[in-house]
This record gives sequence, structure tokens and C-alpha cells, in this order.
Amino acid sequence: MSSLYGKKLKISIFGQSHSPAIGVNIDGLPAGYALDMDELRTFLMRRAPGQSELTTARVEDDMPDILSGLVNGVTCGAPLAAIIRNKDARSADYREVRDIPRPSHADYVAHVKYGGHQDVAGGGHFSGRLTAPLCVAGGICLQILHTLGVEIGAHILRIGNGAEDEAFDAVGVSTADFAVLRNHPLPVLRREAAEAMRLAILHAKESGDSVGGVVECAAIGLPAGLGDPMFDGIENRIAGIVFGIPAVKGVEFGSGFAGAECMGSQNNDSFYMNSGGIKTRTNHSGGILGGITNGMPVLFRAAFKPTPSIALAQESVSLSRGEDAVLQINGRHDPCVVPRAVPCVEAAAAIALYDAYLDAAGC
Amino acid sequence: MSSLYGKKLKISIFGQSHSPAIGVNIDGLPAGYALDMDELRTFLMRRAPGQSELTTARVEDDMPDILSGLVNGVTCGAPLAAIIRNKDARSADYREVRDIPRPSHADYVAHVKYGGHQDVAGGGHFSGRLTAPLCVAGGICLQILHTLGVEIGAHILRIGNGAEDEAFDAVGVSTADFAVLRNHPLPVLRREAAEAMRLAILHAKESGDSVGGVVECAAIGLPAGLGDPMFDGIENRIAGIVFGIPAVKGVEFGSGFAGAECMGSQNNDSFYMNSGGIKTRTNHSGGILGGITNGMPVLFRAAFKPTPSIALAQESVSLSRGEDAVLQINGRHDPCVVPRAVPCVEAAAAIALYDAYLDAAGC
Amino acid sequence: MSSLYGKKLKISIFGQSHSPAIGVNIDGLPAGYALDMDELRTFLMRRAPGQSELTTARVEDDMPDILSGLVNGVTCGAPLAAIIRNKDARSADYREVRDIPRPSHADYVAHVKYGGHQDVAGGGHFSGRLTAPLCVAGGICLQILHTLGVEIGAHILRIGNGAEDEAFDAVGVSTADFAVLRNHPLPVLRREAAEAMRLAILHAKESGDSVGGVVECAAIGLPAGLGDPMFDGIENRIAGIVFGIPAVKGVEFGSGFAGAECMGSQNNDSFYMNSGGIKTRTNHSGGILGGITNGMPVLFRAAFKPTPSIALAQESVSLSRGEDAVLQINGRHDPCVVPRAVPCVEAAAAIALYDAYLDAAGC
Amino acid sequence: MSSLYGKKLKISIFGQSHSPAIGVNIDGLPAGYALDMDELRTFLMRRAPGQSELTTARVEDDMPDILSGLVNGVTCGAPLAAIIRNKDARSADYREVRDIPRPSHADYVAHVKYGGHQDVAGGGHFSGRLTAPLCVAGGICLQILHTLGVEIGAHILRIGNGAEDEAFDAVGVSTADFAVLRNHPLPVLRREAAEAMRLAILHAKESGDSVGGVVECAAIGLPAGLGDPMFDGIENRIAGIVFGIPAVKGVEFGSGFAGAECMGSQNNDSFYMNSGGIKTRTNHSGGILGGITNGMPVLFRAAFKPTPSIALAQESVSLSRGEDAVLQINGRHDPCVVPRAVPCVEAAAAIALYDAYLDAAGC
Repeated sequence: MSSLYGKKLKISIFGQSHSPAIGVNIDGLPAGYALDMDELRTFLMRRAPGQSELTTARVEDDMPDILSGLVNGVTCGAPLAAIIRNKDARSADYREVRDIPRPSHADYVAHVKYGGHQDVAGGGHFSGRLTAPLCVAGGICLQILHTLGVEIGAHILRIGNGAEDEAFDAVGVSTADFAVLRNHPLPVLRREAAEAMRLAILHAKESGDSVGGVVECAAIGLPAGLGDPMFDGIENRIAGIVFGIPAVKGVEFGSGFAGAECMGSQNNDSFYMNSGGIKTRTNHSGGILGGITNGMPVLFRAAFKPTPSIALAQESVSLSRGEDAVLQINGRHDPCVVPRAVPCVEAAAAIALYDAYLDAAGC
Repeated sequence: MSSLYGKKLKISIFGQSHSPAIGVNIDGLPAGYALDMDELRTFLMRRAPGQSELTTARVEDDMPDILSGLVNGVTCGAPLAAIIRNKDARSADYREVRDIPRPSHADYVAHVKYGGHQDVAGGGHFSGRLTAPLCVAGGICLQILHTLGVEIGAHILRIGNGAEDEAFDAVGVSTADFAVLRNHPLPVLRREAAEAMRLAILHAKESGDSVGGVVECAAIGLPAGLGDPMFDGIENRIAGIVFGIPAVKGVEFGSGFAGAECMGSQNNDSFYMNSGGIKTRTNHSGGILGGITNGMPVLFRAAFKPTPSIALAQESVSLSRGEDAVLQINGRHDPCVVPRAVPCVEAAAAIALYDAYLDAAGC
Repeated sequence: MSSLYGKKLKISIFGQSHSPAIGVNIDGLPAGYALDMDELRTFLMRRAPGQSELTTARVEDDMPDILSGLVNGVTCGAPLAAIIRNKDARSADYREVRDIPRPSHADYVAHVKYGGHQDVAGGGHFSGRLTAPLCVAGGICLQILHTLGVEIGAHILRIGNGAEDEAFDAVGVSTADFAVLRNHPLPVLRREAAEAMRLAILHAKESGDSVGGVVECAAIGLPAGLGDPMFDGIENRIAGIVFGIPAVKGVEFGSGFAGAECMGSQNNDSFYMNSGGIKTRTNHSGGILGGITNGMPVLFRAAFKPTPSIALAQESVSLSRGEDAVLQINGRHDPCVVPRAVPCVEAAAAIALYDAYLDAAGC
Repeated sequence: MSSLYGKKLKISIFGQSHSPAIGVNIDGLPAGYALDMDELRTFLMRRAPGQSELTTARVEDDMPDILSGLVNGVTCGAPLAAIIRNKDARSADYREVRDIPRPSHADYVAHVKYGGHQDVAGGGHFSGRLTAPLCVAGGICLQILHTLGVEIGAHILRIGNGAEDEAFDAVGVSTADFAVLRNHPLPVLRREAAEAMRLAILHAKESGDSVGGVVECAAIGLPAGLGDPMFDGIENRIAGIVFGIPAVKGVEFGSGFAGAECMGSQNNDSFYMNSGGIKTRTNHSGGILGGITNGMPVLFRAAFKPTPSIALAQESVSLSRGEDAVLQINGRHDPCVVPRAVPCVEAAAAIALYDAYLDAAGC
């Protein structure tokens, strides 16, 4: 097992970077939702490469071909499968990788796990390209969540160790914030942060290097009561899908690691009555208590390591010769995956939260 | 669903803080392992309360009664169930909590989710007490992993914002490190750190407050090839269980959030040949690439929020009256859950990794 | 994995015939249901042995000790665990079985699968005794289903090849039928059938032999729309649990194998309007179309093989000597498991259908 | 959830009778198996329609397009997805069905479950056409099982109430039997049975009616020890997938319902030593004891109801008018699905058994 996610909504992803197609099957979508294909395409374009100087030059038309699950554009209760053909032809770029694994890529572990039969081209099933079908599924969930009054948005909180955006307002984050973010290739709340980030990424690119960063995501409009104690909590569910996005090495909710430095009197969120409803004055919990939503915005951050594909020469080993070797990668790569990862994080959150929403029904 | 974990090894936890008993059923343990009950008891004593000035005064004999799954102390292939009776009598401490939810506890969300039928005594199923059966299951997994050459250890990396231990040596962490840790109520690598932590916890206790912290965990001796791409990666699996420990709000692997501030050339782990085997010179990946172990130590950190139970007066609401209210908690509570959480993190890691080990067999 | 069942309601069963206890953990029960313990005991007594000349002489007090999941007798949303202590002491009856497996019992396959570490006493985890915790879970589901207007009943359709009851009226089966059945040790619709069955069982008992039979089960009051296409259909779900009852070797729905001999014009169930609702004039479908309930009674039959425990000498092999051997069993056994299996089938159906009910919510 | 099956091998099926494509994603296939596409096509042709006077006239080229999971025809460890385009254009045949559900079809329950949004064309996701991707997955499993020494074959045991083949030799069924079966459109062991079956089917066709039947399936070469007790037994696993084939209403193993009429002394299978191995002299158990294979052939039978699509006028209701109505179906349909179901049963068995094989590894 590997590429399945969900309890009520079963997401099953397939494909390799250079296989004939990549795709997703979504089992468990309720019937009766009209999909807005234009909106889905717009969402997917935010992830698509080749749009600016900051991303890989690989040109892809990531628009999905929906094979099933719809009748006249409306979900019919049957599994919805969508595929995206891989059009950009297989290159010889990856021949050397079969013998000399790229540091901090999955080449070596795939070689061990699959006994040399793994698809090395473009990283195979481990490629960031597999986030395209994730975004198809997530984009559909976002549309359905919207009809339920739930909105999800994300922004780049940090690139490298200098360029930093301000954080979401943990209690007041709103759709207005999200609307602003979606119009920019470097989605940030504070416009000046974007320029610092752009420079940090270009600097990495020009150095033949790469740089990491952090994405912050918020979901608003969720009812209290979603999620379950212990292993099916909202934290477990979100982490369970977000760690499926390549390069994610950390996930934290609410005040997260910073909260661990606090006293309880600082980190606790006081309850108060607000227009008849119960709210908290702060939101260090990130909207989740005991694994369950409390009606406040759900807030989390995902740490992305710098993409391991760099142009600089690196030390590695030759698997065939059993000796040290030097590797020089000549493919097309993003110097920073974080900008394109923003919609992926939104998609992952949408899938996890909509699945939790369906799972909470009737219980 | 809620309190089940695992793919090949199914851990099913039950009980409330004040129910007749708490326990765990472990389905999928291979037959033929002789359990060392003394060793299990020693492990569980590390989590037990009432052992020092730093923990709750609640006295518990957390020794489990194993009901099934053994024949003459050896696993027989049938599910292994163990229970721990709750002996410390139900108090009236929690009566007020039914009406006035404790800030940052699960009281309010449980009220919403379970329509007022939740067990409020001691936090019910959300209590940290439920980590006792988790440790029973984890303690058993630790013993079996030991026979497979795998060892797991954890220490307190930080308490609050001052008291900090040194991190594990990411490439060289060894059983010698773990042996040292297990002999101390405040398990740290650098003895001086313990005193600073003790003072930080006592300060919180005396202020009627609480304090958070970070636990770091390492697993050594794992073969390369455990885990799967995307949603069944080792990160997903470990996060999926560690977020089930109450108060955990962040999980990071390897260089984690700090790695997100780096350049690829800094964060990548070079491969090299070592006595015929392949190793990496650094271990910013935390032993995991593409969700799969690479044979280096698996390393992760979990952020624990300060326990929300504090003696200071707090703002909350009265659910019955629909108005703001002030809450003063008079129960017995740990000023810091982190010391007792250390074996819980080891237990969680042991369950996740042994499950991944079984899951990788034959594939 | 082995002894877990369910999608929304996770039933996890543990214990061996002679382990300290047997039990069940039920994860996913909605909060707010008051359990009637007397009714549960009455239900469990229908499965208990030692009540007549027709069953094993083993005396058990199968009344469960509920460890968690309740507050003042009302479900609280936390997992409900219940155990039954095994009081009847371990005998030496099974010593020979370790070496000479009983024909058509699980002794041999358990030996192979668990490498000789299996619990041979009383069949270990394969014992029919494990249906006691199944009945605890099922008895609870029956009570909840009752509040939803759903009733389940079963009767002995056939013992051996002569003694036969009439079948349920496929369209008109009612609670009145069920009420009659529950008052008899040999639950049948036609009283005369009971005497023939009694004689068939006594004949088997006196011959040192055993005899098989068929149980028919009906569920009424189910709404249309439960279940899912393909692998989560009601047939799959019911078969998936009923085949977990020891000795079941066949399951059929509606007209089943007999329907396979028919023409479509005979077997199809015509729809008609009835007081504003849609019904079918016949019910050869057993209330299930495309895996989904259609609002008519759900009807199925389970075939039980004759219990393999017979007093007659049988041919087997000695595992230690690797040669043919003769086996003579001297334990206490039911000459026919079918009468005690009736409540087990009801319990299994209740679990499967209540799980399907919860699973259908919100979709 | 609905169209997913498996524990280690996750089969996820999608598509509707008239959607752009149907397909399957297979997650968990081990790496390193070279697929023989010609053999797969040969297998799929056994299910394809339009080959004789006995099947629907719908012409389909059911050859799959494999989108992922292979590198140069060898499994690479990534999920293997395959699709089949639906070329035979959407007709107006099904317009009436939206309002007047076909008796004993899923039209009505789909209407209730999906609120009128279901795909009515050709039965949508409930169509027998979805067995094509099931056969793709099963055909691949058959090839891999072959390399493990496991062979699976099936034949028509009965059509209607007269035309009957002889049963498999429960202890001696062999690959020679299977070889014979695969060469005939009506696979039977006794050639004369085929002619009686042909006449029974043609009679149904000419009467505008349909007829049911029974398929018997055997798997040989399986090691002892596959499967688990209680709910993950081989019976549960096989029933769990076979009931996913449309029209299956009964499944029995070994002596099944007939065995329920026997005495234990008749039905028990004696063990004996045979060339150093342990075998049973009879095989009333169908190769399964306690849910676990015992090394003898696994044998089961599936009862298929007569296909509900008949040309005769039938009573139904008008959903829009809420009154009784008469339905006359004019589509293209098989008068008997059983011949084409034979490879589907083999495919289902292959998936269930290979999944059990993988699941047993390492335990």
C-alpha cells in the first residue's frame, strides 16, 4: 500500500513522472455536486510549472481528463477518476541516476525497496508531478467545501532564512485574505515579502542551488465537532496527507513548536460568548482540541526542505561499482518548490477536512 | 472511528480516565515472541505518575493484566489484549467541568461532538491516562524490535524557552546514548540540562502554571526499505500515531523546520561507501527519503504544548447559562507532561516502525 | 490482521477458549444510547451453553464486564470494551491435540501459521467461544437498531437432511415472528419442526457424531439506500462477518442458490406502489439490489457444517512423528452448534447492518 | 466507499457503463514482474461480449491501456492503473429507466441513494461492464500467482435447473482440468453438459427471458497458512470480492450448503501423510479451516441470479408519477451472464488469494 488516503473519501493516486499518464480515483464523493471545470483549471494552473522565472521550464498542460463519476458535469455517486497525460517526452536526463542516486532524493531507497525495478525517470512515482492528481482531488473538495461554507487558503510564510511573510491572524483570518493570495505567483499577505522571496529563489537558481521554506494554511467556516480522539484527530488526518507531499519534513498546528516554549497561562485559549456562539480569544490550538475542531480557524504550517535537485556537483555512490562517485544533475528543476506547493497544501487540507466532514456525519 | 492505529499491527485502545479499566487490543502480533514482563513493567514505570515532585500526585499501579494472546508468556498469534484497572477513585473534581469547559482541553469539543454524553471525569477518553495502554503496546513492540536489532530512544530536548539539551548525533546516535537516558526521571544527554529543566518545571508548578517542551526520538538499526511513497511513508505513519498523544502540536523529521531555512547544498545528505554499505555523511533527512527508510537513524521531534490544566483562574463560558464564566481547576495535574511523555513517544515510534516492518515483509 | 470488522463501527475481538478472558472493543458507537443490561444478558443467554440436553456441558457465565464507553449506563462516544472471564478451568483434554490435529478443525492450520506457538487449548482463538464477545457487540447493536425501527430475527431452517422449518415470509416477515422465535431453545416458525430437530441432534449425540444445519435471518425496517456498489455491498458486508462465525461454509441472500435455477421472469421482483411507498411483490432479491437495501426485508441464510468435534475415532496424523495416527476426542462438545448459532447470526447481521447504517449517513 | 478491495493489494475500480472510460488502479503490486500482455488479452477475451449467439451484441474492444506502474513491461512498485475506453456510443435506450426502474436491477436503489443524480445509462457503475477492470486486475494476479505455483480455474456447474456439469474433483483437480476449460465459450468439464447449457440459454433468449446458474472455482498450489481467523479468513476475503460481481447472490465453500445436511463423520476430512506432506482424504472443507488454507485445493461456488434484464413486459412504478407502470426493455443484454462470469470469478479469486498471499508474508 502507499498512495491511498481517506476514510470516507478514498483518494487513490497513480502514475510516474514519465508514465503514459498520471491520475487519481476518488471513491466516495456524494452525488449531486456540479463541478465547475473552469474553476478547477484555474486552481490547477496555480500548481502548473513553466509560468515564471522561478519554476522549472518543463511545460505541462496539467488539465485533467475526467473519465468517470460525472453525469452532465454533476457527480453521480460513482467513483470519479481523472487522468493527465504526460506529454513532455521522456529524456535521457535520468540515465545516470539509475546508477548514482541523487542525494536526498528517493532514488536510493526506491532501488532498495523495488530491487532495481523502480522507474528512475523523473523520480518515478516519487516525483512532485504526482501532486497534480492530488490537486485535482483537492480542487474538487475545495469546491464542495465552499458550498458548505468552508474556505481554505495558504500562503508562503518563509523562504530560506530571511524572507518572511506575516502569519495569518489566527482568530480573524478571512476569505478576503485568501482572495488576495490567489492572484500572485508568490502568494503572501505582505506584498514586500514577495520581493525578498523572489530574490532568495533567484539567488538559489543562479547559484545552481535550491532553497526551502514554510507554507501556512488556514481553513475557516468549519463546524465544531469534526475529527476524533487519538489516531483519527484532525492533526493526524492532516499530517497523514500533508507528509505525502514530497519535501515536507515538518507539520505543526496552531502555536506548534513555538507553543512548546510557552507557559500554559500564555498558550491556553480562553473561551467567551460571541453573538450566542462560543469562541476563543486566541487560537494557539489552531482550531483543534483533542483532535476535534472547535469552530475556530484550523491553522497549520508545513516545512519544505530545499529541493534536493541542485546543479552543483555532489558526492554520491555508484550502485554498480560499489564505490564513491560524483554526481552532476542536468535536468530541469525548480530552485524552490514552495510557491507551487501552496495549492498542494490547500488541496491536501481540503481532502483531509472534507473526508473528516463526511466521516463525522451521523456520529 | 478514532482509537485504532496500524496496517498489519492493529492497535485498538479503550478506556476513560475514570472508567473501570483502560486497555488495548493488539491484533497482528506474530507468534513465538517470549515477552519479558519485568522489562515491560520497567518500561511502564517510566510513564507512571507519582514518582517525583515533578508529576501529578495521582498514584496509579499501571501494571497491565494480559487477558489473551499469550501461551506460557509467548505470543500465540491471537490478539493480545491487556487492561489496567483504574483504582484511584472517582472524585468530584470534575463536576464543574461539565458546565464550564477548561480552556484548551477537549471538554468543549467533546460536549459538541457527543451531545453532552461525554465522560467529563478526568477528561474521559481524551485523558493522558490513555497513553498507558499505548505504552503497553509500544513496550511489547520495543521488545520485538530489539530482537530484530532495532533500538529506540528519546530524550527531552527542551522545556519551555530556556532549558535545552543537546540534540542526538544524527549520524552517530547509539544504544549507549539510550542506556544513559533510561536511568533518569528527566532523560537528557547533557546532565546539566536536567537541572535547568527541573527548575523550569518547579517554577511552573509553584506559579500554578504549566510549561511545554519538545521530545526528540531516534530509532537505530532499521533496514533501508521500510515505508511507502505518498501517504504511507514513515513520516505519515509516525505522525499518524504521535499526534495521538495528547498535547502534541507539531512533528518534524530530520532537520525539519530548521532545514526549511537552508539551501539544498547545505541540507542534502551525501552518500558514501562505508564498509561495503551505503551511508550518508549527514542525516538532515532523519533517515527517511520519499517516505522510506534509508538505513540511517530515523530522527524526529514532537512539540508538546504546556498542559492546559493550570491552577490559575481562567476565562471560560458556562454551557448551561450561555454566558462568560471564570474557571478555577483544583485537580491533581502535571505541571509539565513532557518527562512522562518521553516513553510515550518511544512507544508510539515503536508501534509505527514495527507495523511498517511487518508491512514491508514480502513486498 | 484478523479479528477486526467494520468501517464506521470497529469491532475488535480478542481472547482464546482458555485465556484469562475473552472480549471485544467497539470503537465508533455514537454517544447517547442507554444500554439495557438486562436485555443484553437475556440475549447472551440464548447463546450460552449448558442450558439443555442439546448443548455442551461446559458451564459458563457469559455475562460481560463493561470496562469503558459508558457513563451511567449511557454510551459516551468513547470505545466500549467488554470482557468475559474464562472461569471453567483449563483441562488436560487438549494435550493430545497439539500433536494430532483434529480433522476439519483449525488445529493443523494454526500449527502451520503460528509455527507451533498457537494456543491449542479448546481451539484457542478459533473456538466458538469467541462468538460470545461477538454477541456482546451484536446485542448492543440490536438495541440501537431497535430505536431506529430496525428488528432482526433468525431461526433454524434445517438440521441435517430431514428436519426442516418453513422459511420466513420474504415480504411479510414481522416482529411477531421474531417474538415467537426468541422463546424457544430450538427457534423455529413451525413448532413441529423443533421436535424433528431435537431428535436429529440427540441422534447425533448418542452416536458420538454431530450434525450441521442452516440458519435463516431477516432484518426488517431498514431504509432503502444502505450499502454501496461492488465491494461494500450489504451482501459483502454481511458475508464478511458471518463467515467469521466458526463452521459457516455458505451464505446466500434472497433466493440464493435456488434463484440461480430460475428464469429472470420468475426471479425478478416487480415494483408496485403501496400507500405511497415503493415495494416489491416478491423478494427474491433478499432486500438487496446492487449491494444496496431496497426497503424490503433483508434475508439471508448461513450454512453451518456439522461441528468437527465428534467422539468417534478419526484418522489423522502425528505432527511430531510424521505418520498417520488415530484420534479419539474426549472433550465436551455440542453435537450441533446450530441452535446456539442463531443469536450469533443475529448479532453478526446487527453489527453489519448498523455499521452500514452509520456508513450511509451523510452520503 | 464502495469499489475498493484488498489489504495489501488495493484494487480501486472506477467507471460507468457509458462514461468515457472504465478502469482500475492496483496499489501494492510487488516490483519485478514482467507482464505478458498477450496472455492478459487472451484472458480478457474470455469475458468480452459479442463473441457468440449466447451473449449481448454490444461490441467492445476491452483491451486495456496501461497508464502507469510498468517500466518496459515490468512492474516497478508504483500503482498500476489501466483504463478501457467506452467506444460503443451512448444510446437512448435508457431514457425510460430514469423514471421506471427495472425490476431487480439497481436503478431504484441508486435513485434513492444518489438522489436522482445516478448515471442511469447502462446501469452506470452497477453495470456488469465494470467486471472488465476487475478482470484486468485479476488477470495480472493470475500471472503472478502462476509464477508462485498457484493456478486458478472455473467452470459452469449449472445453468438453470437442468443443465449440469460434474463438479471438480475436490482433492484431485489439476491444471489439466483448467486447460480444457479455457478453450470453450461454455467452459465445462463434461462436454455434453455444454450442449444442454447452450440450449437452456438459447431458450431463454428466444423467450425474451433470462436464466441463472452456478460457477464453481478451484485454486491449486496454495501453501497452507494463508488467511486469518474470524473476519479475515479466506472465506470472508473471497466472499468479500465475489459478491462484488453483479448478480452473485450466494457463495459456498467446499461442501457448503450440502455439507450442512451431513453428519460430522461424513463431512470431516481425515488427515494422512502423503510423501512426507500432510493431506486430507476428502476436501469437504474446500481447502479452508478456521479461515486458513490447509494446502488442499480451495473450492467455492457462486450462485448467479438470472440477469434481471429481460425483454418481457414487467410491472414497475413511475418514480415521477408515483404510480404503477409497465416496463418494456429494448436494450442489448445477455440472456445469461454465467458464461462470461466464469473468468470474472477466476479474477476475483486471484485477487483475493494473491492479496492473502502478500498479507501472510512475514507473519
